[in-house]
Amino acid sequence: MHVFTRHRAASVAAWGEEKLIAAIRRWLGPATPPAPFGIGDDCAVLAGSRRRQLLTVDPVVYGRHFDDTVPPRSVGEKLLKRNLSDIAAMGGRPVAAVVALTLDARVARAWLEAFYRGMAAAAKKYGVAIVGGDVAQADDVFAANLTLLGEATASRVVTRAGARLGDWIYVTGALGGSVATGHHFKFQPRLAEGAWLARQRAVRAMMDVSDGLAKDLRALTPPGAAPAIDAARLPLRGGADWRGALTDGEDYELVFALAQRADREQFARAWRCAFPRTALTNIGRFVAAGAVPAGAIDLADYHGYEHLR
Amino acid sequence: MHVFTRHRAASVAAWGEEKLIAAIRRWLGPATPPAPFGIGDDCAVLAGSRRRQLLTVDPVVYGRHFDDTVPPRSVGEKLLKRNLSDIAAMGGRPVAAVVALTLDARVARAWLEAFYRGMAAAAKKYGVAIVGGDVAQADDVFAANLTLLGEATASRVVTRAGARLGDWIYVTGALGGSVATGHHFKFQPRLAEGAWLARQRAVRAMMDVSDGLAKDLRALTPPGAAPAIDAARLPLRGGADWRGALTDGEDYELVFALAQRADREQFARAWRCAFPRTALTNIGRFVAAGAVPAGAIDLADYHGYEHLR
Repeated sequence: MHVFTRHRAASVAAWGEEKLIAAIRRWLGPATPPAPFGIGDDCAVLAGSRRRQLLTVDPVVYGRHFDDTVPPRSVGEKLLKRNLSDIAAMGGRPVAAVVALTLDARVARAWLEAFYRGMAAAAKKYGVAIVGGDVAQADDVFAANLTLLGEATASRVVTRAGARLGDWIYVTGALGGSVATGHHFKFQPRLAEGAWLARQRAVRAMMDVSDGLAKDLRALTPPGAAPAIDAARLPLRGGADWRGALTDGEDYELVFALAQRADREQFARAWRCAFPRTALTNIGRFVAAGAVPAGAIDLADYHGYEHLR
Repeated sequence: MHVFTRHRAASVAAWGEEKLIAAIRRWLGPATPPAPFGIGDDCAVLAGSRRRQLLTVDPVVYGRHFDDTVPPRSVGEKLLKRNLSDIAAMGGRPVAAVVALTLDARVARAWLEAFYRGMAAAAKKYGVAIVGGDVAQADDVFAANLTLLGEATASRVVTRAGARLGDWIYVTGALGGSVATGHHFKFQPRLAEGAWLARQRAVRAMMDVSDGLAKDLRALTPPGAAPAIDAARLPLRGGADWRGALTDGEDYELVFALAQRADREQFARAWRCAFPRTALTNIGRFVAAGAVPAGAIDLADYHGYEHLR
């Protein structure tokens, strides 16, 4: 299904802004509470919370994050889930979101309805309220930015900083081949896993894998260290080879550092008990820079997804 | 100054994403705290607050909200101030913001630097932390969406709902001619005024005037009522006539309903004492629908800014 239509009667232009916003409320249904707690006032009003707050924003842009082969319903789901993956990576839970559209007036209403209904279904599944948004016009573009507010689930949030020399490197699920397999819109954000990991003190640093492990791991690597990754241990998504696992991107899995002194067998047992259906793999460890053993991958040779090229 | 450049060396494309994000941090300076409280982790981390939270999002799009006659520094200021006006309209104070760019790789770096430096200056002035964002590529577009998180300053937030038949209608400042005078990027969001009004119990409903009074007042009008506006009382911005005051839009002033039984003289004195340099004008009142007196403007004849046309 194509995002734009040549028939004005089927486009958002035939409606104008007020009718469009009324339709968005209808499409979101119970995913958007009544104003001022949802769409309809100058701001959305949310209850206070003593927990630390988490704030993140991610887009879907036509031609970049999806094309005509992806059902519009899945595009709406993907937009929310990309942001949920960021909340998961800090060990948080989602609370509320606002959605800003930048779109050509030729966008097909039927496409947009499926997009919002997909987003609403994902919002219901993951307990997120869609509380507001904006619609702005621009030529030849469909871009949607979702800002997600969440909160910590534990006494701490897990950041990218904190890994130390000697720490073990783990990833959830499998890597690579995300676009070829449709994983890039079918994935499940690792919210429960992220919240569980935040409660394990031996987990020192965490992030989600979105631009490819080779690029993302750099942000997790402590100063003076390098990741020594064993190619044979990389968990591969169907059809991917280990180069794809390092560079394809859009995995939306969690990568984290486990303290060197942790009891890894006990940790793995506790994980299997909590998440029997989610793979967890130790793929290597942080070693001194310059001391990467022969046989380990030199990540400097690989690059993840490069934006703005 | 033009937002796009024909010289690749002067564009963001010559940098790529990582260098661009490093530059954005530099341009924002102290307006963005160190990670994880600012740019650099999966989410930004904010302290909890027992106060009610406010969430809003508004964009600036090249060709819609600004053109080449507006200095890029002012575009950055405008993006933040548009959102601050929404926080002001609920009687809140701003806390933190994230900024999502959807941009062509031909955007000039010098333009973007001035844009961020303007935003940073406004963030400092109004006490907002810019805590994160996203950069996504799209062809032939520059759009920036800013999501602003705020909190209530008083025991209540003032919504658009709550006005009653007989209530007086007031506006701050002056209306009309916003684009012609440059007010659309030079305005000061009415944060102090909004917080003060939220503490006055006689203020029953409030919103900001952004699409023109004729359109925006509809959202403030209680069921069964109509606004009876006296054209002669409309406060006009230099050069505007009363039609412009109703329909030009981008005023970023506050319009609110004052309870019929309120002591209006005492209210006006308290206002002048608190805000000696901000005009406050009673422009009419809410009367029974069908009972709009002869001489009052029939707002049904006027439309504010219509999006998506």
